[in-house]
Amino acid sequence: MKKAINILVSLVMVAGLVSCNNGENKKGSKGQGGLATNAAEKVYVAPGEHDEYYAFFSGGYSGNLTVYGLPSGRMFKEIPVFSQFPTSGYGYSEETKPMFNTSFGFVPWDDSHHPDISQTGGKLDGRWIFINGNNTPRIARIDLETFETVEIIELPNSAGNHSSSFITENTEYVVAGTRFSVPVPQRDMPIKDYKGNFKGALSFISVDQETGRMGIKFQLMMPGFNYDLSHPGRDKSHGWFFFTTYNTEEANTLMEVNSSQNDKDFIAAVNWKVIEDYVNNGGGTKMPANYAHNVYDHDTHLATSTMEKEVLTVDPTKVPGAVFFLPTPKSPHGCDVDPTGEYIIGNGKLSADLTVHSFTKMLDAIENKKFDGEAYGIPILKFEDVLAGTVKQPGLGPLHTEFDGKGNAYTTFFISSEVVKWKLGTWEVLDRQPVFYSVGHGMIPGGNSREPFGKYFVAMNKITKDRYLPTGPELEHSAQLFDISGDKMELLLDFPTHGEPHYAAGIRADILKKNSKQFYKLADNKNPYATLSEADARVERKGNEVHIYMTTIRSHFTPDNIEGVKVGDKVFFHITNHEQDFDVPHGFAMIGANNAELLIMPGQTKTLVWEPKQVGVWPFYCTDFCSALHQEMQGYVRVSPANSNMELSWSLGED
Amino acid sequence: MKKAINILVSLVMVAGLVSCNNGENKKGSKGQGGLATNAAEKVYVAPGEHDEYYAFFSGGYSGNLTVYGLPSGRMFKEIPVFSQFPTSGYGYSEETKPMFNTSFGFVPWDDSHHPDISQTGGKLDGRWIFINGNNTPRIARIDLETFETVEIIELPNSAGNHSSSFITENTEYVVAGTRFSVPVPQRDMPIKDYKGNFKGALSFISVDQETGRMGIKFQLMMPGFNYDLSHPGRDKSHGWFFFTTYNTEEANTLMEVNSSQNDKDFIAAVNWKVIEDYVNNGGGTKMPANYAHNVYDHDTHLATSTMEKEVLTVDPTKVPGAVFFLPTPKSPHGCDVDPTGEYIIGNGKLSADLTVHSFTKMLDAIENKKFDGEAYGIPILKFEDVLAGTVKQPGLGPLHTEFDGKGNAYTTFFISSEVVKWKLGTWEVLDRQPVFYSVGHGMIPGGNSREPFGKYFVAMNKITKDRYLPTGPELEHSAQLFDISGDKMELLLDFPTHGEPHYAAGIRADILKKNSKQFYKLADNKNPYATLSEADARVERKGNEVHIYMTTIRSHFTPDNIEGVKVGDKVFFHITNHEQDFDVPHGFAMIGANNAELLIMPGQTKTLVWEPKQVGVWPFYCTDFCSALHQEMQGYVRVSPANSNMELSWSLGED
Repeated sequence: MKKAINILVSLVMVAGLVSCNNGENKKGSKGQGGLATNAAEKVYVAPGEHDEYYAFFSGGYSGNLTVYGLPSGRMFKEIPVFSQFPTSGYGYSEETKPMFNTSFGFVPWDDSHHPDISQTGGKLDGRWIFINGNNTPRIARIDLETFETVEIIELPNSAGNHSSSFITENTEYVVAGTRFSVPVPQRDMPIKDYKGNFKGALSFISVDQETGRMGIKFQLMMPGFNYDLSHPGRDKSHGWFFFTTYNTEEANTLMEVNSSQNDKDFIAAVNWKVIEDYVNNGGGTKMPANYAHNVYDHDTHLATSTMEKEVLTVDPTKVPGAVFFLPTPKSPHGCDVDPTGEYIIGNGKLSADLTVHSFTKMLDAIENKKFDGEAYGIPILKFEDVLAGTVKQPGLGPLHTEFDGKGNAYTTFFISSEVVKWKLGTWEVLDRQPVFYSVGHGMIPGGNSREPFGKYFVAMNKITKDRYLPTGPELEHSAQLFDISGDKMELLLDFPTHGEPHYAAGIRADILKKNSKQFYKLADNKNPYATLSEADARVERKGNEVHIYMTTIRSHFTPDNIEGVKVGDKVFFHITNHEQDFDVPHGFAMIGANNAELLIMPGQTKTLVWEPKQVGVWPFYCTDFCSALHQEMQGYVRVSPANSNMELSWSLGED
Repeated sequence: MKKAINILVSLVMVAGLVSCNNGENKKGSKGQGGLATNAAEKVYVAPGEHDEYYAFFSGGYSGNLTVYGLPSGRMFKEIPVFSQFPTSGYGYSEETKPMFNTSFGFVPWDDSHHPDISQTGGKLDGRWIFINGNNTPRIARIDLETFETVEIIELPNSAGNHSSSFITENTEYVVAGTRFSVPVPQRDMPIKDYKGNFKGALSFISVDQETGRMGIKFQLMMPGFNYDLSHPGRDKSHGWFFFTTYNTEEANTLMEVNSSQNDKDFIAAVNWKVIEDYVNNGGGTKMPANYAHNVYDHDTHLATSTMEKEVLTVDPTKVPGAVFFLPTPKSPHGCDVDPTGEYIIGNGKLSADLTVHSFTKMLDAIENKKFDGEAYGIPILKFEDVLAGTVKQPGLGPLHTEFDGKGNAYTTFFISSEVVKWKLGTWEVLDRQPVFYSVGHGMIPGGNSREPFGKYFVAMNKITKDRYLPTGPELEHSAQLFDISGDKMELLLDFPTHGEPHYAAGIRADILKKNSKQFYKLADNKNPYATLSEADARVERKGNEVHIYMTTIRSHFTPDNIEGVKVGDKVFFHITNHEQDFDVPHGFAMIGANNAELLIMPGQTKTLVWEPKQVGVWPFYCTDFCSALHQEMQGYVRVSPANSNMELSWSLGED
């Protein structure tokens, strides 16, 4: 056993060694001045001009989603999704705290992996972007008019929500698959009884086409494998969804060895239209399940959380034609379907060849019932019967494949640290480029749709080492931008990424920019604590709660001085920003607050709770440099002892 | 009164209008292909090459410090300082939570404004960088070998710690000044009694030259003005410190009007050497004060917090020659001293002229006692007696001035949105460049020292609007990079910044990069919960506490399966990363944890607390893509009911 470990460790370590050598070689070839100038011009976006593409990178362990421009590689925004974000008070303000509700209580962090942009007819439509929370299983929806997280739904019966979130070509469903199988329902049972007893839930979440609102349509209860990644069918294969599995051994300890025993694992091909019909006709089993569903409303600027009580589950063996297994080389990671819907690519992450499955052949094999046994009642197709072709020895450790819409595929190789371009159908290798170092996913804007834009490829590399000025032991990860408009890939730029991007979604800028909201209309503000006129600014006491209805406009708070607050009070600052122009936020900070600040966009209301603990006169101020007199935008709260008789009073700045 | 407000608002609004027009003009002049190519090449750092300068930007309302490279404008790291950082578990892990202790309890956010790099002999030495917490008054020290926050000290008797953190030329002191004056000691008193009763504390914090350890040497109890920014004397003026004041009116409501009444406010010139002698000889008054002092130790990888009990205060009127006031045009913001130490620049932020004070003339006026009255016992010098010269009408709304070390100064103008280069001594305007939009501070690497590097100027702009692809109502702020190596400034690049940078500190890359630590030696790990050998991995119960002593190395946790945990337990995952190579962190996440993840650098130990609430079998996994078999790096914890008799057991991955 120890020997097996050593072999695996050695294999895995290759990544680092290969990478380092590549790094040295690269640095030795600096003298190509002409090329560098060309690359410099290609990535340069002059002051006042705009990038061509948006790229949305998952934050990985940041739990967020970052927005970059391509080709410049500049980060324009970090959108907080699953993690508290002190910068804006997300997850600290009263309006946003409900976004973190789960069946486990308040969970202020997650690991966000795979963003996917909504589609209509297989084309990116730019309405929403979805992303998964991997750790405490959740799916979030981000509104691409406001670039805000507007919905988070928890997934019951799941653990390690990794093969998520990918969407069907009319955004009928966003799909979320468990990575770790677990007892369903959860119960106290020995871990050694995993095999045959744990289950892997694949959740199909419907999306309301008007509002975007999500709801779990059904959960498919699959065998207790690990489900790694997934991809919807496209065009001819629309109606199907494909999931890579690993650990079909159903091992439960020292997984790096024990789940690498089988020569082949599976791609699970799921015909969701058949299951949809089945459940629409009353199929499936309702089971009790607690999971949170949190929605942020743009009119009230307020998140609300509800706890759902049941979920519809489907046993795949009860639905004829619903699920088939396609044998796939050992422990595949990525699962990718080309824009025509014909080719399904999933590859052993320790292998050297690339195996491609054919959708047409798969249908044919199913039609002719050419099965090679079954696993837990699910038919297994024969490897040879569904094989479209093999790309021979393109590299070591294939992870993920993207498409340019011109018949070419681009596969990342983690172990040999390279990107390989090859031809769909002929399986011929057309080009290869080293990357620095250990690339995970790659991304071509629109690469997940029927119509990829096909101009750039971004490699998301896992190891950074010497690529940038050193910043101590902890480094940002690193992306590399390639121009793929010609026959050969051209490396243009290294740029650091924030958090740990696992995947990204890109879209042509003009599709999104025309809809981007600049500010919220004050007149539409329906927050129950909004103060729509300065004249309505006031302070009210309800027992030991003090509610301050405050307004902000350059460059004062109304009220700006408040007396009569006492130690032991719970003070609510409900602040409405009266600005009605683009890019005039105000901030609000209170000394000694045990949470964060508020960053309030024009027309918005946000609420900070402060529980004063010390008698004294304590300042607050605007935290966002808003005008030449920003420094003067301040006020004081006088805090009296708990037993004081002070009545509330406040100044409106009129004296 | 309403009229006065309107005039001010109009004046302030000019910023936006001027900016927008400039923006249009800029966009109209796109056709300069030659210039753009030049700029593209100047900012392009080819893959595998390194930037020339580090630039450390304050995060403003993010509470953090971001590390950029110049000239590329790429962000290499966000160093968490005053705010919780879910990405690495800073402020969530047991080792780092004590960093947020204050006299107000756990304060997980702040507003960080002014970083300053340590100096020796007036030159940047790259040992540490200091930064202020503006809201709950604190100063932090970041170690520039590890790029980690290693110390945070709270400041008693302070509020709005804005004129901070600036350091003397041998890092004898880091100085922190209150922005809002408050009652000292804090007490229950009417806000209207502000005038004459509130105080402004200026804190001189000594820095141990071996360890960097901070301690408050003394607090100077100044009149109840607002203290905006500060700068140490340099070279000939070493031993002095200069602070801009505003609100010398001591108004307390509608400050944008009421604190803009006096034609002149002051620069306070503080002779800290005189006060140092005074306190070293027993001067000053000890007063009770509660303030937290939090230190992170690199050997234990553990922060500890202590509560200090008293502080030494100094009444400036008791120390002859300690403090003088230099009249300065209305409501100055920046306070800047040139590299020779002769010129002190502080300007009314609504004015059109630039006024420069002379250190030599100041000394002469003091020597000859040419005073023009006093304020609260502090002598006021005559404006004309200390005036070095005036730069006539360079722009509107001067905020802050940097120096290139070649006799030139660069002043930012917020209202007219431009940077103006002028000559020290002749007061002649040499160049001006529009910026987009509303620039706050500027930064030249080394510009705060005796020897600025003088190649680049970075404008930190407050309004972003249309500079990048839109991202909804909330935008990142924007910086602009200028080449200042020639006679005229050349705009090279727009780049977004993260949080709200107020100021930045830059340093030549070679000074820092040689010292940057790559990983922690496991053998030096003194964390009390470290597990230095896989054989020592174990699980122990102490009442309802379960301590899991866990190790990580590619690609497994030891132990990987744990049973015998019960609902109601408090589970401590003490995880030691056994990797001993650069850039091989492991992460750790536990489903449903009510905090964040751990990101553990090689050789480090970190601890996450998990309080399981539901019976079941729950997974954990590595969150940082560490090897080809990263997906297999997982484990399970079985949680039994509270009344279960299950004993603890665990698997070491040996079966």
